[in-house]
Amino acid sequence: MEIKILKNIMHANQRLAQENRQLFDERKITAVNVMASPGAGKTSTILKVIEALRDEINIGVIEGDIASSIDAEKIDRLGIPVVQINTGGGCHLDANMIGTVMPDLNLKDHAILFVENVGNLVCPSTFDLGETIRMVIASVPEGHDKPFKYTSMFEAADVIILNKVDLMPYIDFDKDSFYKGIRAVNEKAPVFEVSCRTGEGLDEFIGWMRSIVK
Amino acid sequence: MEIKILKNIMHANQRLAQENRQLFDERKITAVNVMASPGAGKTSTILKVIEALRDEINIGVIEGDIASSIDAEKIDRLGIPVVQINTGGGCHLDANMIGTVMPDLNLKDHAILFVENVGNLVCPSTFDLGETIRMVIASVPEGHDKPFKYTSMFEAADVIILNKVDLMPYIDFDKDSFYKGIRAVNEKAPVFEVSCRTGEGLDEFIGWMRSIVK
Repeated sequence: MEIKILKNIMHANQRLAQENRQLFDERKITAVNVMASPGAGKTSTILKVIEALRDEINIGVIEGDIASSIDAEKIDRLGIPVVQINTGGGCHLDANMIGTVMPDLNLKDHAILFVENVGNLVCPSTFDLGETIRMVIASVPEGHDKPFKYTSMFEAADVIILNKVDLMPYIDFDKDSFYKGIRAVNEKAPVFEVSCRTGEGLDEFIGWMRSIVK
Repeated sequence: MEIKILKNIMHANQRLAQENRQLFDERKITAVNVMASPGAGKTSTILKVIEALRDEINIGVIEGDIASSIDAEKIDRLGIPVVQINTGGGCHLDANMIGTVMPDLNLKDHAILFVENVGNLVCPSTFDLGETIRMVIASVPEGHDKPFKYTSMFEAADVIILNKVDLMPYIDFDKDSFYKGIRAVNEKAPVFEVSCRTGEGLDEFIGWMRSIVK
């Protein structure tokens, strides 16, 4: 009985994700589902892309958080279309939430839409939002062993960012091990090493972002 | 119907948590449910307590991870009783898992039992394991805004550790804001500022750990 319920929920989510995907296709929106641990740098990464590309590409943001509108306010201050979803305890965004808020987001066609998921390296990986790209952000202080422990997240990624590389000198981070962990579950996703704080590595990443626009 | 199912699951968990609590009481085991984001320093904190107190207090560890036995191996190397639970995708430990592995853990009475939960600042907060103490570990690189965003975790905490304070000079961390966020939802929990890497602040924390032993 429990299994049956779970199947129904997943089925509904997949149907709604498909509707989102169709909407994104029709409107030439590249939807990027940004997933990471709390504090890995999801908002910082989005802000850096906005800063670099806002004059050439339409950008909008859907912010997911359990509580607060701290991140949405940061985006709003830049004059970028943003909607905040508060899940009220929920550990991930789902396709229904995205479909529901899309009409409220004043986003033009031919755009990048960032969907910042709830800070959680587990649950968001199993909920399709209809996104075009699944972006996973890891950060140096979290340690190099994360791909070995949170396999489904790294397996699902279309692109992986390693943020906070400026902290490398102060942390025992084994980069070879980190890459081994990724490649054990994901052969293809490009990995960009960046620091949103110092700007290191961002040019290459921004170039890649430019390349994925529909 | 979904709500009914959810109630049943929670009810079962609470009954099993109560059984665990009774076992811990009878055996004078102080069970510490250690919760944090991935990479905040759960295992490092446990290792520091083991190092400091193993000659005076019995200590055991239940390790929770989605995959891998990396952390359990670190504990086992010290000759401390440890059992690894792999949740196989599950985003939290539950009371049944703890009750099931307790007979396999070669732990004496009058002990501290660390239960290292899955790295996740959301879901574990809502599952009672029958623990004596709920320990939440935050870390400086995650940023000062986490108590505002992950309120239920900080609200549920009996003790809060702020780890990686050695990285404070390299990060924009507003300590006043961090404490404001905590005190907005939790008036009582003591907060210890430590660095497992440099040892800073550990003496005071270890003293507190000594004080909670049954």
